[in-house]
Amino acid sequence: MRLYDMTLSGNCYKVRLFLGMIGQQAELCSIDLRAGEQKRAEFLAINPRGQIPALVDGDMKLGDSQAILVYLARRYADEHWDPLDAVSQGRIASWLSFAANEILYGPATARVGKLFGLPIDTAAVHQKALAALQLLDNHLVTHTWLAEGAQPSIADIAVYPYAALAGDGGIDLTPYTHLNAWFARIRELPGYFGMPGL
Amino acid sequence: MRLYDMTLSGNCYKVRLFLGMIGQQAELCSIDLRAGEQKRAEFLAINPRGQIPALVDGDMKLGDSQAILVYLARRYADEHWDPLDAVSQGRIASWLSFAANEILYGPATARVGKLFGLPIDTAAVHQKALAALQLLDNHLVTHTWLAEGAQPSIADIAVYPYAALAGDGGIDLTPYTHLNAWFARIRELPGYFGMPGL
Repeated sequence: MRLYDMTLSGNCYKVRLFLGMIGQQAELCSIDLRAGEQKRAEFLAINPRGQIPALVDGDMKLGDSQAILVYLARRYADEHWDPLDAVSQGRIASWLSFAANEILYGPATARVGKLFGLPIDTAAVHQKALAALQLLDNHLVTHTWLAEGAQPSIADIAVYPYAALAGDGGIDLTPYTHLNAWFARIRELPGYFGMPGL
Repeated sequence: MRLYDMTLSGNCYKVRLFLGMIGQQAELCSIDLRAGEQKRAEFLAINPRGQIPALVDGDMKLGDSQAILVYLARRYADEHWDPLDAVSQGRIASWLSFAANEILYGPATARVGKLFGLPIDTAAVHQKALAALQLLDNHLVTHTWLAEGAQPSIADIAVYPYAALAGDGGIDLTPYTHLNAWFARIRELPGYFGMPGL
Protein backbone atom coordinates (compact mmCIF):
# COMPACT_ATOMS: atom_id res chain seq x y z
CA MET A 1 0.00 0.00 0.00
CA ARG A 2 1.07 3.56 -0.68
CA LEU A 3 -0.44 6.49 1.25
CA TYR A 4 -0.23 10.00 -0.19
CA ASP A 5 0.26 11.96 2.97
CA MET A 6 1.20 15.15 4.82
CA THR A 7 2.53 15.09 8.37
CA LEU A 8 0.44 17.99 9.70
CA SER A 9 -2.87 16.94 8.11
CA GLY A 10 -5.31 15.50 10.64
CA ASN A 11 -7.08 13.66 7.81
CA CYS A 12 -3.81 11.95 6.82
CA TYR A 13 -2.97 11.25 10.47
CA LYS A 14 -6.29 9.45 10.99
CA VAL A 15 -5.34 6.99 8.24
CA ARG A 16 -1.79 6.50 9.56
CA LEU A 17 -3.22 6.01 13.07
CA PHE A 18 -5.74 3.41 11.92
CA LEU A 19 -3.09 1.56 9.91
CA GLY A 20 -0.98 1.43 13.07
CA MET A 21 -3.88 0.19 15.19
CA ILE A 22 -4.70 -2.66 12.81
CA GLY A 23 -1.06 -3.62 12.29
CA GLN A 24 -0.80 -2.63 8.63
CA GLN A 25 1.95 -0.66 6.96
CA ALA A 26 1.91 1.71 4.01
CA GLU A 27 4.71 3.42 2.15
CA LEU A 28 4.25 7.15 2.81
CA CYS A 29 4.51 9.54 -0.11
CA SER A 30 4.56 13.17 1.04
CA ILE A 31 2.51 15.69 -0.96
CA ASP A 32 3.42 19.38 -0.81
CA LEU A 33 0.08 21.23 -0.63
CA ARG A 34 1.70 24.68 -0.69
CA ALA A 35 3.40 23.77 -3.98
CA GLY A 36 0.01 22.58 -5.30
CA GLU A 37 1.16 19.00 -5.89
CA GLN A 38 -2.37 17.76 -5.13
CA LYS A 39 -3.71 19.56 -8.23
CA ARG A 40 -1.12 18.18 -10.68
CA ALA A 41 -2.09 15.65 -13.34
CA GLU A 42 -0.02 12.82 -11.81
CA PHE A 43 -1.91 13.16 -8.53
CA LEU A 44 -5.35 13.77 -10.09
CA ALA A 45 -4.94 10.41 -11.84
CA ILE A 46 -4.89 8.90 -8.34
CA ASN A 47 -7.55 11.11 -6.75
CA PRO A 48 -9.57 13.30 -9.16
CA ARG A 49 -10.84 15.29 -6.15
CA GLY A 50 -7.30 16.65 -5.69
CA GLN A 51 -7.16 16.02 -1.96
CA ILE A 52 -5.01 14.09 0.45
CA PRO A 53 -4.95 11.49 1.86
CA ALA A 54 -5.20 9.06 -1.03
CA LEU A 55 -4.46 5.36 -0.89
CA VAL A 56 -3.22 3.01 -3.59
CA ASP A 57 -3.54 -0.70 -2.80
CA GLY A 58 -2.82 -2.97 -5.76
CA ASP A 59 -4.86 -1.48 -8.60
CA MET A 60 -7.33 0.22 -6.24
CA LYS A 61 -7.01 4.00 -5.93
CA LEU A 62 -9.07 5.74 -3.27
CA GLY A 63 -9.31 9.28 -1.94
CA ASP A 64 -11.20 10.67 1.08
CA SER A 65 -9.99 9.92 4.60
CA GLN A 66 -13.34 8.55 5.74
CA ALA A 67 -13.65 6.29 2.69
CA ILE A 68 -10.11 5.00 3.25
CA LEU A 69 -11.03 4.03 6.83
CA VAL A 70 -14.07 2.14 5.49
CA TYR A 71 -11.92 0.31 2.93
CA LEU A 72 -9.16 -0.59 5.39
CA ALA A 73 -11.64 -1.75 8.03
CA ARG A 74 -13.54 -4.01 5.65
CA ARG A 75 -10.37 -5.41 4.09
CA TYR A 76 -7.86 -5.71 6.92
CA ALA A 77 -9.41 -5.12 10.35
CA ASP A 78 -11.35 -6.93 13.04
CA GLU A 79 -15.11 -6.54 12.53
CA HIS A 80 -15.60 -4.37 15.63
CA TRP A 81 -14.04 -1.48 13.70
CA ASP A 82 -16.96 -1.49 11.22
CA PRO A 83 -19.69 -3.95 12.29
CA LEU A 84 -21.94 -5.16 9.50
CA ASP A 85 -25.36 -4.86 11.13
CA ALA A 86 -27.58 -2.14 9.65
CA VAL A 87 -27.81 -0.02 12.81
CA SER A 88 -24.03 0.06 13.30
CA GLN A 89 -23.49 0.81 9.62
CA GLY A 90 -25.94 3.71 9.77
CA ARG A 91 -24.47 5.11 12.99
CA ILE A 92 -20.91 4.88 11.68
CA ALA A 93 -21.84 6.54 8.38
CA SER A 94 -23.49 9.34 10.33
CA TRP A 95 -20.33 9.97 12.41
CA LEU A 96 -18.13 9.80 9.31
CA SER A 97 -20.33 12.54 7.87
CA PHE A 98 -20.05 14.51 11.13
CA ALA A 99 -16.24 14.25 10.83
CA ALA A 100 -16.36 15.49 7.23
CA ASN A 101 -18.74 18.35 7.98
CA GLU A 102 -19.18 19.76 11.50
CA ILE A 103 -15.66 18.76 12.57
CA LEU A 104 -13.98 19.80 9.31
CA TYR A 105 -15.73 23.18 9.10
CA GLY A 106 -15.45 23.76 12.88
CA PRO A 107 -12.28 22.80 14.79
CA ALA A 108 -10.27 21.76 11.70
CA THR A 109 -10.95 25.08 9.96
CA ALA A 110 -10.15 27.04 13.14
CA ARG A 111 -6.82 25.19 13.17
CA VAL A 112 -5.85 25.94 9.56
CA GLY A 113 -6.79 29.57 10.20
CA LYS A 114 -4.53 29.87 13.24
CA LEU A 115 -1.73 27.44 12.35
CA PHE A 116 -1.38 28.12 8.61
CA GLY A 117 -2.71 31.69 8.45
CA LEU A 118 -5.56 30.96 6.02
CA PRO A 119 -8.26 33.66 6.03
CA ILE A 120 -11.30 32.42 7.97
CA ASP A 121 -14.36 33.99 9.63
CA THR A 122 -13.07 33.23 13.13
CA ALA A 123 -16.29 34.01 15.03
CA ALA A 124 -18.46 31.84 12.75
CA VAL A 125 -15.93 28.99 12.67
CA HIS A 126 -15.48 29.00 16.47
CA GLN A 127 -19.27 28.95 16.92
CA LYS A 128 -19.47 25.84 14.70
CA ALA A 129 -16.53 24.26 16.53
CA LEU A 130 -18.04 24.82 19.99
CA ALA A 131 -21.40 23.40 18.84
CA ALA A 132 -19.67 20.30 17.42
CA LEU A 133 -17.58 19.73 20.56
CA GLN A 134 -20.65 20.17 22.78
CA LEU A 135 -22.62 17.68 20.70
CA LEU A 136 -19.79 15.16 21.13
CA ASP A 137 -19.54 15.84 24.86
CA ASN A 138 -23.30 15.32 25.28
CA HIS A 139 -23.19 12.05 23.33
CA LEU A 140 -20.26 10.75 25.37
CA VAL A 141 -22.11 11.21 28.68
CA THR A 142 -23.92 7.94 27.97
CA HIS A 143 -21.62 6.22 25.43
CA THR A 144 -18.11 4.82 25.67
CA TRP A 145 -17.54 4.90 21.89
CA LEU A 146 -19.26 7.06 19.27
CA ALA A 147 -21.09 4.29 17.41
CA GLU A 148 -22.41 2.97 20.76
CA GLY A 149 -20.67 -0.42 20.63
CA ALA A 150 -18.63 -2.09 23.38
CA GLN A 151 -15.46 -1.59 21.31
CA PRO A 152 -14.16 1.35 19.25
CA SER A 153 -15.08 1.73 15.59
CA ILE A 154 -13.80 3.76 12.65
CA ALA A 155 -16.23 6.50 13.78
CA ASP A 156 -13.92 7.17 16.75
CA ILE A 157 -10.84 7.29 14.51
CA ALA A 158 -12.57 9.62 12.02
CA VAL A 159 -13.68 12.18 14.60
CA TYR A 160 -10.78 12.07 17.04
CA PRO A 161 -7.93 13.94 15.27
CA TYR A 162 -9.48 17.35 14.57
CA ALA A 163 -11.56 17.27 17.77
CA ALA A 164 -8.43 16.63 19.83
CA LEU A 165 -6.44 19.22 17.82
CA ALA A 166 -9.00 21.98 18.55
CA GLY A 167 -6.46 23.65 20.85
CA ASP A 168 -4.34 24.39 17.76
CA GLY A 169 -7.25 26.56 16.60
CA GLY A 170 -7.38 28.53 19.86
CA ILE A 171 -10.27 26.56 21.35
CA ASP A 172 -10.16 25.61 25.03
CA LEU A 173 -11.01 21.91 25.42
CA THR A 174 -10.95 21.97 29.25
CA PRO A 175 -14.74 22.29 29.79
CA TYR A 176 -15.57 19.12 27.82
CA THR A 177 -15.19 16.49 30.52
CA HIS A 178 -16.68 13.55 28.66
CA LEU A 179 -14.85 14.41 25.46
CA ASN A 180 -11.54 14.48 27.35
CA ALA A 181 -12.30 11.10 28.91
CA TRP A 182 -12.95 9.70 25.41
CA PHE A 183 -9.66 11.19 24.17
CA ALA A 184 -7.96 9.34 27.03
CA ARG A 185 -9.67 6.05 26.09
CA ILE A 186 -8.49 6.41 22.48
CA ARG A 187 -4.93 7.15 23.62
CA GLU A 188 -4.93 3.90 25.59
CA LEU A 189 -5.81 1.74 22.57
CA PRO A 190 -3.12 -0.67 21.32
CA GLY A 191 -1.03 0.87 18.56
CA TYR A 192 -1.96 4.47 19.39
CA PHE A 193 0.53 7.22 18.55
CA GLY A 194 0.11 10.98 18.35
CA MET A 195 1.01 13.70 15.87
CA PRO A 196 2.33 17.26 16.34
CA GLY A 197 -0.25 19.03 18.53
CA LEU A 198 -1.42 15.84 20.25
CA MET B 1 -40.67 3.93 9.75
CA ARG B 2 -41.09 7.67 10.08
CA LEU B 3 -39.12 10.11 7.89
CA TYR B 4 -38.72 13.73 8.98
CA ASP B 5 -38.90 15.43 5.64
CA MET B 6 -39.31 18.55 3.49
CA THR B 7 -40.67 18.36 -0.07
CA LEU B 8 -38.12 20.73 -1.65
CA SER B 9 -35.02 19.29 0.08
CA GLY B 10 -32.89 17.23 -2.30
CA ASN B 11 -31.42 15.40 0.70
CA CYS B 12 -34.91 14.35 1.83
CA TYR B 13 -35.91 13.47 -1.74
CA LYS B 14 -32.94 11.09 -2.07
CA VAL B 15 -34.26 9.09 0.91
CA ARG B 16 -37.85 9.09 -0.39
CA LEU B 17 -36.56 8.02 -3.82
CA PHE B 18 -34.51 5.16 -2.40
CA LEU B 19 -37.41 3.98 -0.24
CA GLY B 20 -39.55 3.90 -3.40
CA MET B 21 -36.92 2.00 -5.36
CA ILE B 22 -36.57 -0.70 -2.71
CA GLY B 23 -40.33 -0.96 -2.14
CA GLN B 24 -40.35 0.40 1.42
CA GLN B 25 -42.73 2.94 2.86
CA ALA B 26 -42.27 5.55 5.57
CA GLU B 27 -44.72 7.88 7.24
CA LEU B 28 -43.65 11.40 6.22
CA CYS B 29 -43.49 14.08 8.90
CA SER B 30 -42.94 17.53 7.40
CA ILE B 31 -40.47 19.83 9.16
CA ASP B 32 -40.75 23.60 8.66
CA LEU B 33 -37.15 24.84 8.34
CA ARG B 34 -38.16 28.52 8.04
CA ALA B 35 -39.95 28.24 11.38
CA GLY B 36 -36.81 26.61 12.84
CA GLU B 37 -38.53 23.34 13.78
CA GLN B 38 -35.27 21.45 13.16
CA LYS B 39 -33.62 23.30 16.08
CA ARG B 40 -36.38 22.62 18.64
CA ALA B 41 -35.84 20.24 21.53
CA GLU B 42 -38.36 17.65 20.26
CA PHE B 43 -36.48 17.34 16.97
CA LEU B 44 -32.98 17.53 18.50
CA ALA B 45 -33.94 14.46 20.56
CA ILE B 46 -34.27 12.64 17.22
CA ASN B 47 -31.27 14.22 15.46
CA PRO B 48 -28.90 16.25 17.66
CA ARG B 49 -27.32 17.71 14.49
CA GLY B 50 -30.58 19.61 13.88
CA GLN B 51 -30.86 18.64 10.21
CA ILE B 52 -33.34 16.87 7.97
CA PRO B 53 -33.82 14.21 6.84
CA ALA B 54 -33.96 12.05 9.94
CA LEU B 55 -35.33 8.53 10.15
CA VAL B 56 -36.93 6.69 13.05
CA ASP B 57 -37.23 2.93 12.62
CA GLY B 58 -38.32 1.12 15.78
CA ASP B 59 -36.03 2.50 18.49
CA MET B 60 -33.33 3.53 16.00
CA LYS B 61 -33.01 7.26 15.32
CA LEU B 62 -30.71 8.36 12.52
CA GLY B 63 -29.88 11.66 10.85
CA ASP B 64 -27.82 12.42 7.73
CA SER B 65 -29.17 11.55 4.29
CA GLN B 66 -26.09 9.54 3.31
CA ALA B 67 -26.14 7.53 6.57
CA ILE B 68 -29.86 6.82 6.11
CA LEU B 69 -29.13 5.38 2.65
CA VAL B 70 -26.45 3.15 4.19
CA TYR B 71 -28.85 1.95 6.90
CA LEU B 72 -31.75 1.30 4.51
CA ALA B 73 -29.52 -0.51 2.02
CA ARG B 74 -28.02 -2.81 4.63
CA ARG B 75 -31.37 -3.51 6.28
CA TYR B 76 -33.93 -3.64 3.48
CA ALA B 77 -32.31 -3.67 0.03
CA ASP B 78 -30.73 -6.03 -2.46
CA GLU B 79 -26.96 -6.23 -1.97
CA HIS B 80 -26.12 -4.49 -5.27
CA TRP B 81 -27.16 -1.20 -3.62
CA ASP B 82 -24.27 -1.46 -1.12
CA PRO B 83 -22.00 -4.43 -1.94
CA LEU B 84 -19.98 -5.74 0.97
CA ASP B 85 -16.56 -6.18 -0.64
CA ALA B 86 -13.90 -3.74 0.56
CA VAL B 87 -13.33 -2.01 -2.78
CA SER B 88 -17.05 -1.33 -3.31
CA GLN B 89 -17.42 -0.17 0.29
CA GLY B 90 -14.53 2.26 -0.12
CA ARG B 91 -15.76 3.58 -3.46
CA ILE B 92 -19.29 4.07 -2.18
CA ALA B 93 -18.07 5.86 0.95
CA SER B 94 -15.98 8.15 -1.25
CA TRP B 95 -19.01 9.09 -3.40
CA LEU B 96 -21.18 9.60 -0.31
CA SER B 97 -18.54 12.04 0.88
CA PHE B 98 -18.51 13.72 -2.55
CA ALA B 99 -22.31 14.14 -2.26
CA ALA B 100 -21.96 15.68 1.19
CA ASN B 101 -19.12 18.02 0.19
CA GLU B 102 -18.49 18.99 -3.45
CA ILE B 103 -22.13 18.49 -4.46
CA LEU B 104 -23.60 20.10 -1.33
CA TYR B 105 -21.29 23.15 -1.41
CA GLY B 106 -21.50 23.40 -5.23
CA PRO B 107 -24.80 22.81 -7.07
CA ALA B 108 -26.94 22.42 -3.92
CA THR B 109 -25.71 25.74 -2.50
CA ALA B 110 -26.18 27.49 -5.87
CA ARG B 111 -29.77 26.23 -5.75
CA VAL B 112 -30.58 27.48 -2.24
CA GLY B 113 -29.04 30.82 -3.22
CA LYS B 114 -31.26 31.20 -6.28
CA LEU B 115 -34.41 29.38 -5.17
CA PHE B 116 -34.61 30.48 -1.54
CA GLY B 117 -32.69 33.77 -1.72
CA LEU B 118 -30.00 32.80 0.80
CA PRO B 119 -26.88 34.97 0.54
CA ILE B 120 -24.10 33.04 -1.22
CA ASP B 121 -20.84 33.91 -2.99
CA THR B 122 -22.27 33.06 -6.41
CA ALA B 123 -18.97 33.09 -8.34
CA ALA B 124 -17.18 30.82 -5.85
CA VAL B 125 -20.16 28.47 -5.54
CA HIS B 126 -20.61 28.18 -9.31
CA GLN B 127 -16.89 27.46 -9.71
CA LYS B 128 -17.21 24.58 -7.20
CA ALA B 129 -20.39 23.35 -8.90
CA LEU B 130 -18.83 23.31 -12.38
CA ALA B 131 -15.76 21.46 -11.07
CA ALA B 132 -17.96 18.85 -9.37
CA LEU B 133 -20.14 18.34 -12.46
CA GLN B 134 -17.06 18.05 -14.70
CA LEU B 135 -15.52 15.47 -12.36
CA LEU B 136 -18.74 13.43 -12.57
CA ASP B 137 -18.90 13.78 -16.35
CA ASN B 138 -15.29 12.60 -16.70
CA HIS B 139 -15.91 9.61 -14.44
CA LEU B 140 -19.05 8.63 -16.37
CA VAL B 141 -17.17 8.45 -19.68
CA THR B 142 -15.95 5.01 -18.64
CA HIS B 143 -18.47 3.95 -15.96
CA THR B 144 -22.17 3.15 -16.11
CA TRP B 145 -22.68 3.67 -12.38
CA LEU B 146 -20.61 5.75 -9.96
CA ALA B 147 -19.26 2.92 -7.82
CA GLU B 148 -18.21 1.06 -10.99
CA GLY B 149 -20.50 -1.95 -10.56
CA ALA B 150 -22.81 -3.49 -13.16
CA GLN B 151 -25.84 -2.28 -11.18
CA PRO B 152 -26.60 1.02 -9.42
CA SER B 153 -25.59 1.58 -5.80
CA ILE B 154 -26.50 4.09 -3.10
CA ALA B 155 -23.65 6.25 -4.46
CA ASP B 156 -25.82 7.03 -7.50
CA ILE B 157 -28.83 7.87 -5.33
CA ALA B 158 -26.73 10.10 -3.04
CA VAL B 159 -25.19 12.18 -5.85
CA TYR B 160 -28.11 12.32 -8.29
CA PRO B 161 -30.59 14.82 -6.75
CA TYR B 162 -28.46 17.95 -6.35
CA ALA B 163 -26.46 17.22 -9.52
CA ALA B 164 -29.69 16.92 -11.52
CA LEU B 165 -31.19 19.99 -9.79
CA ALA B 166 -28.21 22.20 -10.76
CA GLY B 167 -30.46 24.03 -13.25
CA ASP B 168 -32.40 25.42 -10.25
CA GLY B 169 -29.16 27.17 -9.27
CA GLY B 170 -28.72 28.76 -12.69
CA ILE B 171 -26.21 26.19 -13.98
CA ASP B 172 -26.50 24.93 -17.56
CA LEU B 173 -26.29 21.13 -17.58
CA THR B 174 -26.37 20.82 -21.39
CA PRO B 175 -22.58 20.45 -21.92
CA TYR B 176 -22.28 17.40 -19.64
CA THR B 177 -23.13 14.62 -22.10
CA HIS B 178 -22.13 11.66 -19.94
CA LEU B 179 -23.77 13.12 -16.87
CA ASN B 180 -27.04 13.56 -18.77
CA ALA B 181 -26.86 9.97 -20.00
CA TRP B 182 -26.42 8.83 -16.37
CA PHE B 183 -29.42 10.96 -15.29
CA ALA B 184 -31.43 9.16 -18.00
CA ARG B 185 -30.28 5.74 -16.74
CA ILE B 186 -31.36 6.63 -13.18
CA ARG B 187 -34.77 7.84 -14.42
CA GLU B 188 -35.33 4.46 -16.07
CA LEU B 189 -34.79 2.50 -12.85
CA PRO B 190 -37.84 0.71 -11.41
CA GLY B 191 -39.60 2.83 -8.78
CA TYR B 192 -38.10 6.13 -9.98
CA PHE B 193 -40.08 9.33 -9.42
CA GLY B 194 -39.04 12.97 -9.57
CA MET B 195 -39.44 16.02 -7.35
CA PRO B 196 -40.16 19.68 -8.18
CA GLY B 197 -37.34 20.79 -10.51
CA LEU B 198 -36.74 17.28 -11.91
